[in-house]
Amino acid sequence: MLAVDIIRSKRDGRRLSPGAIERFVQGVSSGAWPDYQISALLMAIVLRGMTSDETADLTRAMVASGERVDLSSLPGIKVGKHSTGGVGDKVSIALAPLAAACGVTVPKMSGRGLGHTGGTLDKLESIPGMRTALSLDEFRAALADVGCAIIGQTASIVPADKVLYALRDVTATIESIPLIAASVMSKKLAEGSDALVLDVKCGGGAFMKTVDTAAELARLMVAIGTASGVRTEAAISRMDAPLGRAVGNALEIRECLALLKGKGPPDLAGLVATIASRMVRLANRASTDEEAAAAVHQALASGRALDRFSRMVERQGGDPGIVDDEGVLPTARCLTTVRSPRAGMVAAIDAERIGRAAMRLGAGRDRKDAAIDHAAGVVLAVTHGEAVEAGQPLLDLHHNNAPGLDEARALAETAVRIVDTVAPAPPLIIDWIRP
Amino acid sequence: MLAVDIIRSKRDGRRLSPGAIERFVQGVSSGAWPDYQISALLMAIVLRGMTSDETADLTRAMVASGERVDLSSLPGIKVGKHSTGGVGDKVSIALAPLAAACGVTVPKMSGRGLGHTGGTLDKLESIPGMRTALSLDEFRAALADVGCAIIGQTASIVPADKVLYALRDVTATIESIPLIAASVMSKKLAEGSDALVLDVKCGGGAFMKTVDTAAELARLMVAIGTASGVRTEAAISRMDAPLGRAVGNALEIRECLALLKGKGPPDLAGLVATIASRMVRLANRASTDEEAAAAVHQALASGRALDRFSRMVERQGGDPGIVDDEGVLPTARCLTTVRSPRAGMVAAIDAERIGRAAMRLGAGRDRKDAAIDHAAGVVLAVTHGEAVEAGQPLLDLHHNNAPGLDEARALAETAVRIVDTVAPAPPLIIDWIRP
Repeated sequence: MLAVDIIRSKRDGRRLSPGAIERFVQGVSSGAWPDYQISALLMAIVLRGMTSDETADLTRAMVASGERVDLSSLPGIKVGKHSTGGVGDKVSIALAPLAAACGVTVPKMSGRGLGHTGGTLDKLESIPGMRTALSLDEFRAALADVGCAIIGQTASIVPADKVLYALRDVTATIESIPLIAASVMSKKLAEGSDALVLDVKCGGGAFMKTVDTAAELARLMVAIGTASGVRTEAAISRMDAPLGRAVGNALEIRECLALLKGKGPPDLAGLVATIASRMVRLANRASTDEEAAAAVHQALASGRALDRFSRMVERQGGDPGIVDDEGVLPTARCLTTVRSPRAGMVAAIDAERIGRAAMRLGAGRDRKDAAIDHAAGVVLAVTHGEAVEAGQPLLDLHHNNAPGLDEARALAETAVRIVDTVAPAPPLIIDWIRP
Repeated sequence: MLAVDIIRSKRDGRRLSPGAIERFVQGVSSGAWPDYQISALLMAIVLRGMTSDETADLTRAMVASGERVDLSSLPGIKVGKHSTGGVGDKVSIALAPLAAACGVTVPKMSGRGLGHTGGTLDKLESIPGMRTALSLDEFRAALADVGCAIIGQTASIVPADKVLYALRDVTATIESIPLIAASVMSKKLAEGSDALVLDVKCGGGAFMKTVDTAAELARLMVAIGTASGVRTEAAISRMDAPLGRAVGNALEIRECLALLKGKGPPDLAGLVATIASRMVRLANRASTDEEAAAAVHQALASGRALDRFSRMVERQGGDPGIVDDEGVLPTARCLTTVRSPRAGMVAAIDAERIGRAAMRLGAGRDRKDAAIDHAAGVVLAVTHGEAVEAGQPLLDLHHNNAPGLDEARALAETAVRIVDTVAPAPPLIIDWIRP
């Protein structure tokens, strides 16, 4: 079957056979398919869709394009976690050591930020000395020693995804639920976990804007994971307001430390504890939800989760003293406060605007090769439903006189909506999708 | 507006602005748009469509990507002609000198064959010495002298189409009515005609399989031509059986000579005369249809059309003696006759199978750079509705022991359907589309 026949088949809305999908992915990895044929097929997939079976076939072929991490030398059930990304989403950084402190092995490969959402690797790298480019042997050794490690994807993991992603970015073919599912799940399956908890975010600050599309993506990813023998569950969680109060790399590490010390913002702390409990259950470290929740609570209250964080940082070359002295983290020279124009109640905090404001301050990238300012970002002083006076601080911009300051302030000023009265915020987790 | 934004816009089914379309075509011509972005947009256009206005904008931008032939130095109304292509379609070769003999100037740029339909240039080049690669100055001089000329497109004509066509061929983005219309009409508008007659073929041997799609393409092309100030009409004509009896380059030239001598097969002769009459009307060389038909009849009966053909051949370097001695044309060494397996009536002659059989014999190309055998082809011995005996010849394969002979014979044997009784063939022209 020639490339052009495979493209034509999808263009006409037909189902691609497993063989055709394998041929495509091999063509992508080997370079046998020129870019223009790949992008034509990607656009046909975006507009014609793919069935759940086709997406599972695509995922399998993508996993097979590279190395699959072998974690069989480690004891117990390895549980991975992935979030589709949101503003202020630092969940993994606190979650991995917390679950590890409960006896779960957490192998985590993460990405960098692009656009208005930050990346876990960028956040971790605000810790002086912290390395995220570990070899697979170093990764296994760190997991055996600490129980968790958070690293970047090595070049050998799903090389086909790297080619596809670079092309999708410049051909308007990112926005496809099957392509997103295959990209995420191929990397998660190659990561070597036995079970997986997904956090599919939806709302104004997330990639999926509606609950329906988020649920569709979640169901598809759960089906793919399950079909590959990995127990997979997905939370659908709100991403209308930023998660927690801090947005920006070192600022979010500070918030994770607070959380691990029992002083995290309630929305973030609740989400981390809930996902950690699910991971404890999937790892068979508890036989009821209550038992799992108690184990998580105990790991936090005892300081064992914080200790695990410190060991993870040390194992990856960072300064473990950070847990006692946050002063080793970079700090912005300037603080610009945005105040409430009126008295009232906080009705909404627009995650996307806050994310874009942080990016303008230097916390994120608008191009893949842009440098970032680890100290920059936004810290909210208020949360949903809180009463405020006129002139009361709503948030602080942390920056080093970034050229985008004015733009960031304009975004931040319009991000917080103040009204007379407001209903309480709905729960963060909307639903769970299970096989 | 970035390339990726233009692609996204069409992906989401939005109308592209004239500026966006211009930017795209400029990017194609200049090389600023990489192939993978062009092919992603082409696929989005195939699947999302384009309005008539967008297609007209695309056509205009494509014309502007190159030179537009200036024929204003020639007197009178110049009338072009284009066929969307079919098996045995040699209409232009007889039509151009016939219309010229009626006082119409016929500037004709043609293409080569690819796939199961032949190309006018390949047919003409079976005449020894015949040149189709004339410069624009030679083209104008030939038109001034003879009144007609049939040449290949020069490199300066619609360069954007050359890039687009090469990509469409390998990315399954050929089959799009707006893209086909823009490709055809950009070349026809650049050709410098004042009026245009289109022959949009439909049926098993044509690119458009149904009357509805052919009519859609015809309406779109007529609208584009009219919007650019070129009086445009389109015939929708059947292409279920081959046109005339000969399929193959030199064989079709022989049939054109027969036609110009008043001995052409009735279906072909009727179509040529009808289109010639329309061209005479569009050139204001007759004030009624009857007058036009009489002029065409007179040009044939008097031998002036044949004489014009001879002068056209001579002006383009070919041997004008061909009109008296067809022996100068190449002849195949072998003849293989396919006979009727039973007595009955000819119910159908499958144009596509006959076209593919001729291609297998060497008359056409399956790759752009393949050589062709000008002598090879198929000559039908019967037509629709004719009564045949068992064992009576149905057609002859003309060949030089081509490697594809067995395949060609198998195609030819299944191309003619014999039944007990059959209704007369419907008229070749189904409809005319006018502004």
